[in-house]
Amino acid sequence: MPAREIYHDAVCTALKKDGWIVTDDPLVLTIGLRSVFVDVGAEKLIAAERGPDKIAVEVKSFLSPSPISDLEMAWGQYFLYARALQKQEPDRALYLAVNETVFQTLFTEEAGQLLLAGPGFRLLVFDSNAEEILQWNP
Amino acid sequence: MPAREIYHDAVCTALKKDGWIVTDDPLVLTIGLRSVFVDVGAEKLIAAERGPDKIAVEVKSFLSPSPISDLEMAWGQYFLYARALQKQEPDRALYLAVNETVFQTLFTEEAGQLLLAGPGFRLLVFDSNAEEILQWNP
Repeated sequence: MPAREIYHDAVCTALKKDGWIVTDDPLVLTIGLRSVFVDVGAEKLIAAERGPDKIAVEVKSFLSPSPISDLEMAWGQYFLYARALQKQEPDRALYLAVNETVFQTLFTEEAGQLLLAGPGFRLLVFDSNAEEILQWNP
Repeated sequence: MPAREIYHDAVCTALKKDGWIVTDDPLVLTIGLRSVFVDVGAEKLIAAERGPDKIAVEVKSFLSPSPISDLEMAWGQYFLYARALQKQEPDRALYLAVNETVFQTLFTEEAGQLLLAGPGFRLLVFDSNAEEILQWNP
């Protein structure tokens, strides 16, 4: 199984362990007449609920040889999806999910810090081996 | 010459015709310890001045088979560069430059409109054949 799908499945399992019910996998998001997931490089969103809370999770593997390109793509997708989601389902919060290694490298340096400081940005850190959520931010 | 470089040169010429002095081509932008332009897919920035106004221009060719991916990448780069530029040179405004065809297709549909509505986003539209600037937004 490609690492991208392993991460996707690990986040699904981690959410369930954390008490979330996965309601849509994938969650279909449309922007205008386009479904964003027919496009190259698009990540499938996971929709989950726990009590009154509803989230959509974009799992990013950061597997390309260029971490800055991965970061730019993650940022672009996050903000486009967040705006589309706000129109489609305004009470569902979008999270970008990254594994612990990516968080401790790319997100501790300035480029990642700039993203973390972005208005309305939400990040979830997971352990891909233990299949557990380590951090919600915020 | 690849289309990407043709567009870059067309924007340089268009800026000069519009009374701008191109001061740096490329403008080197660093984020933490990284120069963003050693990375895959990075566009070279053009720095220009006209009287008291200073701009940096990121020329985007939108040549991939996936317009939404191009848009996400353009958005991610724009916001990362804008934040880096704000630290490095806060009085220089960043513009994303796209040709007329891209503007009239991708930017008239919802995905492009979401980007145009993004806070602090600046767009410049150019005619790549006539090598002229058609629109500043804002």
